[in-house]
Amino acid sequence: MVKNKTKIYVPGFLANGIAVGIKGTDKKDLGLIYSTVPAKVAAVFTKNTFKAAPLLINEERVKRGIAQAIITNSGCANAATGKEGYRDALAVSAALSREMKIKNELVLVSSTGVIGKRLPLKKIESGIGKLVKGLNEAGIEDAEAAMMTTDKYPKVAIRKGVVGAKDITICGIAKGAGMIEPNMATLLTYVMTDALIDSKALSTVFHQVINSTFNSISVDGCMSTNDMAIIMANGLAGNNPLEKVQARLQRFRDMLSEVLTELCQAVVQDGEGATKFISIMVEGAKSKSDARSAAYAIANSNLVKTAFFGEDPNWGRIIAALGSSGISMEKEKVSLSIGGKMVFHQDSPVAFNLSELKEIFKKDRINVHVGLGAGDKSYFVYTSDLSCDYVKINADYTT
Amino acid sequence: MVKNKTKIYVPGFLANGIAVGIKGTDKKDLGLIYSTVPAKVAAVFTKNTFKAAPLLINEERVKRGIAQAIITNSGCANAATGKEGYRDALAVSAALSREMKIKNELVLVSSTGVIGKRLPLKKIESGIGKLVKGLNEAGIEDAEAAMMTTDKYPKVAIRKGVVGAKDITICGIAKGAGMIEPNMATLLTYVMTDALIDSKALSTVFHQVINSTFNSISVDGCMSTNDMAIIMANGLAGNNPLEKVQARLQRFRDMLSEVLTELCQAVVQDGEGATKFISIMVEGAKSKSDARSAAYAIANSNLVKTAFFGEDPNWGRIIAALGSSGISMEKEKVSLSIGGKMVFHQDSPVAFNLSELKEIFKKDRINVHVGLGAGDKSYFVYTSDLSCDYVKINADYTT
Repeated sequence: MVKNKTKIYVPGFLANGIAVGIKGTDKKDLGLIYSTVPAKVAAVFTKNTFKAAPLLINEERVKRGIAQAIITNSGCANAATGKEGYRDALAVSAALSREMKIKNELVLVSSTGVIGKRLPLKKIESGIGKLVKGLNEAGIEDAEAAMMTTDKYPKVAIRKGVVGAKDITICGIAKGAGMIEPNMATLLTYVMTDALIDSKALSTVFHQVINSTFNSISVDGCMSTNDMAIIMANGLAGNNPLEKVQARLQRFRDMLSEVLTELCQAVVQDGEGATKFISIMVEGAKSKSDARSAAYAIANSNLVKTAFFGEDPNWGRIIAALGSSGISMEKEKVSLSIGGKMVFHQDSPVAFNLSELKEIFKKDRINVHVGLGAGDKSYFVYTSDLSCDYVKINADYTT
Repeated sequence: MVKNKTKIYVPGFLANGIAVGIKGTDKKDLGLIYSTVPAKVAAVFTKNTFKAAPLLINEERVKRGIAQAIITNSGCANAATGKEGYRDALAVSAALSREMKIKNELVLVSSTGVIGKRLPLKKIESGIGKLVKGLNEAGIEDAEAAMMTTDKYPKVAIRKGVVGAKDITICGIAKGAGMIEPNMATLLTYVMTDALIDSKALSTVFHQVINSTFNSISVDGCMSTNDMAIIMANGLAGNNPLEKVQARLQRFRDMLSEVLTELCQAVVQDGEGATKFISIMVEGAKSKSDARSAAYAIANSNLVKTAFFGEDPNWGRIIAALGSSGISMEKEKVSLSIGGKMVFHQDSPVAFNLSELKEIFKKDRINVHVGLGAGDKSYFVYTSDLSCDYVKINADYTT
């Protein structure tokens, strides 16, 4: 991922990331993001029934609309851990609250890693002093590093711009490489901004942008127990306040969208074992839901994904996947293009140059375009291919 | 697959399989099954929108309830080939009809292989004479071999027994190793029997048994354009006729179920790159549809499948997959056992011996049992693991 050259810093935010031995290595595994003043907060959570303990706590706390710190550990998801897991997450929050002298309710907690294991509470509690002491303005990348699991590289995106007559900054960090599927797809994404924004506007805009970015990607069709996206806005930019239906709110949304698009593309590119970045656009659908079903049927087909990995121009698998999506289609109106090359229309293959198609399949980024000819609704999904490395990475994750 | 020692032969059925060069090798790729008298017929077809041309023809012909021959080629699916493909399939049927001097409407056609390519009609037409000439009572295994694509071994199952005061035989053959997912899941399955049975009873029983066998398996969650299951019953056993709601019809159904269970287990075991046979049983659901959604969410999770491949007792992925199924659950009532070992209940991990669980994951056959505690409906699915070989097999299928 090409990072913006901009210094990774958001006014009023401090961060840090350290190693406390949860991963059993010297890799960073405990991170903290802290706003020097209580910040407006909005969040989106996984729809998985077995939501991890920290998410249950955050769901309650975010309702109040204010937060000040997010503490995250990697190496253990604290999911499928029942009441003990819930108490463990509360204990982490309490320890941070004591150390920082902020209200417990202003702390958000987060975990990522293996499901079904208890949190190594002592390691976390004994590291919190050092974690807090090390908080600094340039610490965002350390906090990001501390939440990485199978990620190959850190994912940070930042935008600065004038909104409401002041310079504002929006910076997002994300972690995630597998179990990537919407509702929520993010795994963990935290966004920090110094913009002054109304609580309701923040929540509305954040949900909208998440839906068109992180809820439009898929690596393996697997929905995690721990996915969560959080935005904190501390208002220190002192801009004219952002409220509903304003041009400046639109500008804020655009900046946020740029940040999250960059991050979610980075997540797909870093998809476990991924060698290709595939954009799937379905147009001409009767409804958005039809377009979405069609796009995901293609994005989540193992046969389509392995063909891309093998650079095998086996476009018939895309047609088969589309046909299995369950939406009603008029076959004669369906068209399929790959890399701008039409391969199928009017229910028949288009005569094309196979070696040209082979060249398209060799590229790192491939666009798939499906026309349904049934309406004007569309949907796009970013996905990756399915490689032997995906299997290897996931065949021995816990042991 | 352990075959019954019984001779593979069904009274009144002849078969053959030869190589005509469709695969570009000397492997068999054109097969024929023939009943010496017109037989009752029933069939189940894929629900894929882009049904292959031969299926469109068969759907019409099967409605008449009578058929006499099934001709099948491998190496080319004749799918996504439009009107030309349809004409090609008709041409194959016409050629066989001429050669055998049977009515065109009594011929069923079938193709399997690469999607989006025209059928090499000349090769097929020029081979039909030899194919018909070689028809013989012991030819069923040759016909089976001619429809294999990535299958590692042939799949044939046979049962004999007294039904309606006579010995009857039911023999099934199947092909399929990838793109295995219900509606229909069979890829190709043909069943031959000499039982005398009423048309309506045949259709009812066949659909019932297919639903509990081939529509309960999954290798990769990919639904093919060419899946089809056909049964032909020529009545030559001269048994007391099988009609609805009779004990002897029940006996026939049981025998058919044994044949199809053996075949569908063989298909999963031969799943592309499969190293494990996984049975997933979901019980205690409010509805069958809930149980089914839960079972398939687990069976189709790449993360679950890779954990089984890696013999990594990462049971938390099963919980995550279950939680993503979209059905409503009371977490506290959910339990998960693997190989008879309870690992999760009351929303918490059960204390268990990890090395014992590791031993279970090392086995070739693993049973996963989920209890939902919400009702009395259940569903089982057979599936396989996801290995590097699956990726390799599918990364260069056409080229």
